Amino acid sequence: MTAHPSPSNGSANSAARIELNARLPEVVKSLVQSVHDLPTLQHLNRVTPPSRDVIIDIVKRLRQLTFPGFFGISGLTTENVAFRLGDLVIEVTEQLFEQIRCCLRYRNALPDTEKTQKCPDCDAEANRLVGIFFDRLPAVREMLAADVYAAFQSDPAAQSPDETIFCYPGLFAIFVQRMAHEFYKLQVPLLPRIMTEYAHSLTGIDIHPGAKLGRSFFIDHGTGVVIGETTEIGSNVKIYQGVTLGAVAPQYGQQLRGSKRHPTIEDDVIIYSGATILGGETVIGHGALIGGNVFITQSVPPYNRVTAEPPKLKYRERRHGKMNQQDILTDFQI
Amino acid sequence: MTAHPSPSNGSANSAARIELNARLPEVVKSLVQSVHDLPTLQHLNRVTPPSRDVIIDIVKRLRQLTFPGFFGISGLTTENVAFRLGDLVIEVTEQLFEQIRCCLRYRNALPDTEKTQKCPDCDAEANRLVGIFFDRLPAVREMLAADVYAAFQSDPAAQSPDETIFCYPGLFAIFVQRMAHEFYKLQVPLLPRIMTEYAHSLTGIDIHPGAKLGRSFFIDHGTGVVIGETTEIGSNVKIYQGVTLGAVAPQYGQQLRGSKRHPTIEDDVIIYSGATILGGETVIGHGALIGGNVFITQSVPPYNRVTAEPPKLKYRERRHGKMNQQDILTDFQI
Amino acid sequence: MTAHPSPSNGSANSAARIELNARLPEVVKSLVQSVHDLPTLQHLNRVTPPSRDVIIDIVKRLRQLTFPGFFGISGLTTENVAFRLGDLVIEVTEQLFEQIRCCLRYRNALPDTEKTQKCPDCDAEANRLVGIFFDRLPAVREMLAADVYAAFQSDPAAQSPDETIFCYPGLFAIFVQRMAHEFYKLQVPLLPRIMTEYAHSLTGIDIHPGAKLGRSFFIDHGTGVVIGETTEIGSNVKIYQGVTLGAVAPQYGQQLRGSKRHPTIEDDVIIYSGATILGGETVIGHGALIGGNVFITQSVPPYNRVTAEPPKLKYRERRHGKMNQQDILTDFQI
Repeated sequence: MTAHPSPSNGSANSAARIELNARLPEVVKSLVQSVHDLPTLQHLNRVTPPSRDVIIDIVKRLRQLTFPGFFGISGLTTENVAFRLGDLVIEVTEQLFEQIRCCLRYRNALPDTEKTQKCPDCDAEANRLVGIFFDRLPAVREMLAADVYAAFQSDPAAQSPDETIFCYPGLFAIFVQRMAHEFYKLQVPLLPRIMTEYAHSLTGIDIHPGAKLGRSFFIDHGTGVVIGETTEIGSNVKIYQGVTLGAVAPQYGQQLRGSKRHPTIEDDVIIYSGATILGGETVIGHGALIGGNVFITQSVPPYNRVTAEPPKLKYRERRHGKMNQQDILTDFQI
Repeated sequence: MTAHPSPSNGSANSAARIELNARLPEVVKSLVQSVHDLPTLQHLNRVTPPSRDVIIDIVKRLRQLTFPGFFGISGLTTENVAFRLGDLVIEVTEQLFEQIRCCLRYRNALPDTEKTQKCPDCDAEANRLVGIFFDRLPAVREMLAADVYAAFQSDPAAQSPDETIFCYPGLFAIFVQRMAHEFYKLQVPLLPRIMTEYAHSLTGIDIHPGAKLGRSFFIDHGTGVVIGETTEIGSNVKIYQGVTLGAVAPQYGQQLRGSKRHPTIEDDVIIYSGATILGGETVIGHGALIGGNVFITQSVPPYNRVTAEPPKLKYRERRHGKMNQQDILTDFQI
Repeated sequence: MTAHPSPSNGSANSAARIELNARLPEVVKSLVQSVHDLPTLQHLNRVTPPSRDVIIDIVKRLRQLTFPGFFGISGLTTENVAFRLGDLVIEVTEQLFEQIRCCLRYRNALPDTEKTQKCPDCDAEANRLVGIFFDRLPAVREMLAADVYAAFQSDPAAQSPDETIFCYPGLFAIFVQRMAHEFYKLQVPLLPRIMTEYAHSLTGIDIHPGAKLGRSFFIDHGTGVVIGETTEIGSNVKIYQGVTLGAVAPQYGQQLRGSKRHPTIEDDVIIYSGATILGGETVIGHGALIGGNVFITQSVPPYNRVTAEPPKLKYRERRHGKMNQQDILTDFQI
């Protein structure tokens, strides 16, 4: 080890440095050529795209509005709450208007296809949609209150409902999806997915904004959960980490766009960790219980418990902790 | 595509904008009404809650204290280390005192139940707990040194022990849990879980602060790992991505609070990816090896290797890469 | 609940506070002792290590260079693109030079072993490597354009190729790995792994910088995906969440360093969620399809579809949603 930390600014004058600087124009030229050669990867001469950073900021502020006093502003009282929330509402309204407008203009500028919806006046439409969203906010909060209660009731490690609001990734992912779903229903492009991918990034829980989530929904741990676009989930459903509610044969891609590709989960269903339920015609009947790691592509009647026949386990003695080269080859028998 | 970027500030005067602004008082009023209607979701007229952001900052500084010179402060030498770390200790002490005090006051203000522990003097208690934590820090660092060595030894892709400190998510999650576990043992509410959920968010590894982790613990890759509150893990244990050490029948929720619900893993056990081990009476004996994707709800004797009987694989020829509509239906046979 | 928020600054003068302050010198002394006792955990008297924060910033700027107009700078046009990108290139060049130099000096200072490569002039070498990287950038962008197209074609939920650039975690992880792989090939230590672990942290997708990824690679959802260092992947491969391309018997650790330990996946292969493919001699032939949750440690011939024999599912009626104590014991039969 050398005993003296290296200087961090001694780079400017080296010969190699000067050589690299001399090559910069060439580097930029070849990069610009590459930009022109690959139109898919660039966004030149086009409308301002929505800003992922601002949309994430909107999610954070909506969380403050939804759970006032838990995040952001502290010292809220009965007397000051209207003023504090009023401030926040003004800011979020501005941000939402801007971002929705960007998204709408962005879609207007896409090449014409039968998929592309155009709005004649993006400003008016953005304002209209922001208004509708805020009208819906109390109803969405009411759903979230039921989710909080379900999380507290379902997890013996929870010490208070507040703890689920402070810490639980499942509740956070559900919160973001319920907000994003409102914008999805209003057919705002891009923004809902940017919101849910932010939650996915923080929680490992990937719920498409199109999924319909019922009342009192609970996700425990959550890492690896995938819930597809056309999934429908009833009330009082609980799911655990690694559960996939997915599509059969997703390799057919754009051909299947718009069809019901993901399952329907009725009320009071519990789905344990690692279970996979696939297909748009698959219905898990109310009160059913799906065991861990079960793989299902067909419907399950109500009040049934579905578990996999336990695979035979093989027990074999190891050489008391010492292994030799031969063991390497036989170690994985599964 | 339109050839001119849209102005981003042309919104202020549109008719729709004015209309939305006019509706703001009504929007805020209905939101405030919703806040009063749903007491679970608000934190009004109550003690200042702990700050998730400050607690995350504490974790980052504890990382600098634990691995000095690797993160944050650079240019540490034998001569300056006491001063640099002294500064950091003062800052972390202040932050910890504030946050622990918030957490204690917060618990004091909860409704009385048999679960609720009260402290008569939260300031004195917070100071006492911060003191105990720092007394424990050298012992915790010693455990982490063994974890670093275990990570380096276990992973052929690691080029030096330093690399595991810089980059390995498993080591980071173990570091955070070992810190949080100290506060858990001191019965600080909320703070330990906020710490481990921060690590969960960054790594996909969800270790409850209550879990007891033995010496030289190694987690590789780690995404999807879940280790429950009452798990006990011995020395020299290695686990891989997607392993669950969980509870049976977690749907009974609050009834099971406080009981031993998660397994015990003895020394020198290896658990491969995707294995699930459930139940508070399940003991995996020392030197045992649990194969990938094995699902176990009963104990395993020492020095046993448990693998699942390999499921029969079905091989079927595809039509040389070309598929037709009929294939869609038969594609998932699993 | 108390009706008045607590003051947050009333801590300075309490007796307990003074006592804790009085103990600070002792706390610092014992921590410094611990730092000297555990050399593995400290980085004293050594060269400046690379900065994880700066390396993350480099990744963000490389994303702006790769997808100009989508992230960061907005309002790019044919006329201004060379100037805007030129600015960015200058900044990234500076940052890369500094960080690569840190990494090279860092390796120079490691104890001598046969593994340790030394560079005689780290400044010159860093400049040389930055130059080579930028020469490669157009070719890497070309690969990424094919990845974007593959993602759009494969996912019915995608509304435009742009959406995959804005939101898709799989594309982000592939982008970061393709960049990191260039530095891996140039044998830059630490930096490539710090880059891919950043992507892992955001996406749950863990691709080692050493893995060789073919053209038009698609990862859907992605949480839990692990792709090992010596994996080789052909063109037009699609993989889903939770897929592991791993090593057999990784417990042999450092002994296996440098050998081919991970599988080879040929062109046009699809691997569904949760499948595990292990071993350096395992080859999945072109056009093969690997079903969900399949566990494979041997090669698969071209154009074969491999699915697991469906495990028998057990159906049992539940007591119409009401459960009693007895149910707890029998609930997990899997």
